[in-house]
Amino acid sequence: MNWITTPCLNRDSQYKEYAIERQSQLTKPPGSLGELENIAIRLADLQQTKIPSASDISIAVFAADHGIAKEGVSAFPQEVTAQMVMNFLSGGAAISVLAKQLNANLEIVDVGILTPLPEQSGLIIERAGAGTENAINGPAMTEDQLEIALTAGHHVIERATERDAKIFIGGEMGIANTTSASALYCALLGLTPEETTGAGTGLDDAGIQHKTKVVEQIIKTHHKWGGDTKALLQHMGGFEIAALTGAYIHAAQNGLAIIVDGFISSVAALCSVKINPSVNDYLFFSHLSAEHGHQIVLESLKQKPLLDLGMRLGEGSGAAVAANLLISACTLHNQMATFAEAAVATQI
Amino acid sequence: MNWITTPCLNRDSQYKEYAIERQSQLTKPPGSLGELENIAIRLADLQQTKIPSASDISIAVFAADHGIAKEGVSAFPQEVTAQMVMNFLSGGAAISVLAKQLNANLEIVDVGILTPLPEQSGLIIERAGAGTENAINGPAMTEDQLEIALTAGHHVIERATERDAKIFIGGEMGIANTTSASALYCALLGLTPEETTGAGTGLDDAGIQHKTKVVEQIIKTHHKWGGDTKALLQHMGGFEIAALTGAYIHAAQNGLAIIVDGFISSVAALCSVKINPSVNDYLFFSHLSAEHGHQIVLESLKQKPLLDLGMRLGEGSGAAVAANLLISACTLHNQMATFAEAAVATQI
Repeated sequence: MNWITTPCLNRDSQYKEYAIERQSQLTKPPGSLGELENIAIRLADLQQTKIPSASDISIAVFAADHGIAKEGVSAFPQEVTAQMVMNFLSGGAAISVLAKQLNANLEIVDVGILTPLPEQSGLIIERAGAGTENAINGPAMTEDQLEIALTAGHHVIERATERDAKIFIGGEMGIANTTSASALYCALLGLTPEETTGAGTGLDDAGIQHKTKVVEQIIKTHHKWGGDTKALLQHMGGFEIAALTGAYIHAAQNGLAIIVDGFISSVAALCSVKINPSVNDYLFFSHLSAEHGHQIVLESLKQKPLLDLGMRLGEGSGAAVAANLLISACTLHNQMATFAEAAVATQI
Repeated sequence: MNWITTPCLNRDSQYKEYAIERQSQLTKPPGSLGELENIAIRLADLQQTKIPSASDISIAVFAADHGIAKEGVSAFPQEVTAQMVMNFLSGGAAISVLAKQLNANLEIVDVGILTPLPEQSGLIIERAGAGTENAINGPAMTEDQLEIALTAGHHVIERATERDAKIFIGGEMGIANTTSASALYCALLGLTPEETTGAGTGLDDAGIQHKTKVVEQIIKTHHKWGGDTKALLQHMGGFEIAALTGAYIHAAQNGLAIIVDGFISSVAALCSVKINPSVNDYLFFSHLSAEHGHQIVLESLKQKPLLDLGMRLGEGSGAAVAANLLISACTLHNQMATFAEAAVATQI
């Protein structure tokens, strides 16, 4: 897995400069489209083009189960992971509906749900195992399993690149995966379990208290891996977080802009940047999740999310909703008239 | 103009209740789509339907000039109002591009720009005058002119209703209209000129200081109209703000949901609710404008905007960008599978 540290390509600054210049000539007061101007400029730079685009979107949802679910850290039973995968495939889940609305390609990747599902259209099977081990007392996965999961992400981007995708959205499904994410945030950002542990799919206060203790225990067991992001991923899990990490890294290496979803996806984004700092430029943070802890995480990363709508579903759903903003930003950038074209006077 | 106080129709609560119930059955943790759930429920209630929709959008941009522009309160020369109207019509302005992206109907209404433009496709001519009078020493318009402007808004909604529009977006163009809006906010909400006066299209600090004094002078001249919203509109201007007010009121009376744009549109929304409180239910506030004062205004109105992207363009552009969120909310509400349909287990 040497590929994960390969830096992203150098970019020619002319496209960014051209985009900045064009924004200053469009028929609007300078800066008045706010963040939409920055989005268009960033996309022009990342895509190395004068005509940035957010229309060709590839979405992959990685699904896996978690040994830590045994500790009673989720409001939903573990079989929901596989049931939701079926729901993704039959078009009834939020991300299925949003992908269709965006005319995006949607792949569902089984990187290790508990019980394999029959082969079927739309389902990619690259299983690293039948769920992770319980990370409370030992590693969530082996090094080999980590490699399989990271590679599943790599493969998603190979296919997206073949389809000439311009934007990558990753999603995740895995009952109990906020627990892994909370532990990883603590280890990677020096936060406390209280700061990073929330209700997930809907725990009550007692449930959150118990989950916080589980997160504490995971950290205690694996804290010796300190600043080694790959080792922390391996020990704290899960497969879908590792696959997302691999996908983000390879997306950036291929010049795809990435829209990061919520609480779980952000930890994969953080892992990808810790492993390969050049990935950072390619990340757009879609929304502030309602999951407790996401705000402090985004503040630590100095990221301002595009949306703050109280979403906390995962699956890539917040990123898919935010994709509309990137599309609007590009449409405005490419189609608005300049002051000269429209014969409109500029500032006094 | 007795129509402006006619209350909106009573709504049958069954559609709201059905929408709430449906949201609780969709395959997601309860509440996990955040504000998108509320949007869908509100639209089902306002549209009195089990299948809320945000796809049929009518946009009208009202353009007019302001006598107050003589006081040097804008960074752009006054002829830009008419020039931008031409730009709206030829498809080069932000709102033109966004309307096309949304497949929305776009009307440009001349309610009183300085010099009339030739008749042409897409331009509605309902002029209340050749710009307002300078409000610094006297009324911006006569009562008759106010009626013409309010009625121009009424007519826009009559046409939108004939087209079976489900959503109304109003925009405005009028060099110097933030000055009128700032004065109206002060008079209607008891705010100070310092709190409500900002850079508009791009004033520097000295420009803002001067503009603040102009706003102060307008308030001094017309403060005697106190709580009489119609009289304040007439005295402080402008035609396009009055037309927007008329449009919002009649949109709500016809059961159209309204996406309010930014700083200027919000003052028309405020006027419409002051004149006709039943309009309030129909308003969605699209974004927090970067214009100084909008935050305190939205806080006074207890409104949380959908977006906060630093936009401050007007024309209805922020509302058009936010329309995508309403579309996503409806698509999710109507197309997601229920737990029963997808055979997914509910909470433990």
